Amino acid sequence: MTITITAFERSPDGGKGLARDTRVRWALEEVGQPYEVRLVSFPAMKQPAHLALHPFGQIPTYEDGEFALFETGAIVLHLAERHTGLLPDEAKARARAITWIFAALNTVEPPILELVTVRIFEGDKPWSKERLPLVQDRVRDRLVQLSARLGNAADWLDGAFSAGDLMMVSVLLRLRPSGILDEFPTVAAYVARGEARPAYKRAFAAQLAVFNGKPPTG
Amino acid sequence: MTITITAFERSPDGGKGLARDTRVRWALEEVGQPYEVRLVSFPAMKQPAHLALHPFGQIPTYEDGEFALFETGAIVLHLAERHTGLLPDEAKARARAITWIFAALNTVEPPILELVTVRIFEGDKPWSKERLPLVQDRVRDRLVQLSARLGNAADWLDGAFSAGDLMMVSVLLRLRPSGILDEFPTVAAYVARGEARPAYKRAFAAQLAVFNGKPPTG
Repeated sequence: MTITITAFERSPDGGKGLARDTRVRWALEEVGQPYEVRLVSFPAMKQPAHLALHPFGQIPTYEDGEFALFETGAIVLHLAERHTGLLPDEAKARARAITWIFAALNTVEPPILELVTVRIFEGDKPWSKERLPLVQDRVRDRLVQLSARLGNAADWLDGAFSAGDLMMVSVLLRLRPSGILDEFPTVAAYVARGEARPAYKRAFAAQLAVFNGKPPTG
Repeated sequence: MTITITAFERSPDGGKGLARDTRVRWALEEVGQPYEVRLVSFPAMKQPAHLALHPFGQIPTYEDGEFALFETGAIVLHLAERHTGLLPDEAKARARAITWIFAALNTVEPPILELVTVRIFEGDKPWSKERLPLVQDRVRDRLVQLSARLGNAADWLDGAFSAGDLMMVSVLLRLRPSGILDEFPTVAAYVARGEARPAYKRAFAAQLAVFNGKPPTG
């Protein structure tokens, strides 16, 4: 059965790879699964056909025949559990790698998304400029802790590269436009290691090809 | 081996059960696993001993002998995968239930936590009052979608009660002080069904006992 994911018909970030379909593409590339992409417009995301796949009207979704999932974290975990390459075999190491998926999405990403809120969605509000440093400091608090965890020696968060690293690097990439990543060389080097992976490069190129109007199938 | 979790020495919500240890307690009660609780003060949460367990200096953590986890989502998933009662047996239904754990934590909870930011952490800021309705409307958008998903007939999000419902109800309980939950009777009834579960009641009573200065072990 062919795997089909959804992605923005026109990525709001101009092909920078920050939309969440890139995370799923990356996971599919790491585990060597071919996939097709169905592009969805913003109006179509709120229509019944898409809402039946994704109750919150977002992308990406994942379909494998009649089986469908939404939520990037759930899709990446599903792929990681069923294929080799994104989770260790040993049960305890596996649970720790899964912990980093949740840490990326629930502890590190929320303040990073708040940066987007303050700069973009509330960029025209009178409080935007004064509020920005507060939000930036919440991001920095997390990066100080993440730096300490990574230390100077570890390439990845817990042993070999895992779905936890895939998610953490993906979340941190959203910080690049802010310049904050460069304040934390340990974290910046970690993100660069993620970007250097061939699977990431293929995923990035595939989403960029969509933005540039080339055939979307990766 | 005895399971040990951590919880706030003094819960900031005054025993309302909104701290994340309640979610883990609830999962432990649903699967019938006894546990002990180690209380941690706010200063101790930022000390090396606790940071070795939780790199971001939060609660809860989970220890089973030498094996340790952090992140509520990861702990609940770990328990749900290893015991009966929180995930369906069939693989696809299981993946869908896990999807709702991620949806609760990553799609529904972030705007709800923003309500806390605007009311509490930024409650003294000049923009707080004007910003509140924006954040409230982001929460309402999610509840409209969740209401549509629940419809009028379904007791739970996807078949039988699962770890996905446990997490969604836990996240929605944070809304109760705002009054927004009452605007969505379908969602409010769903939350009430969660609260009515004996396992939730035991978890709630156990965390309240800590706040009231009674022995913390549940």
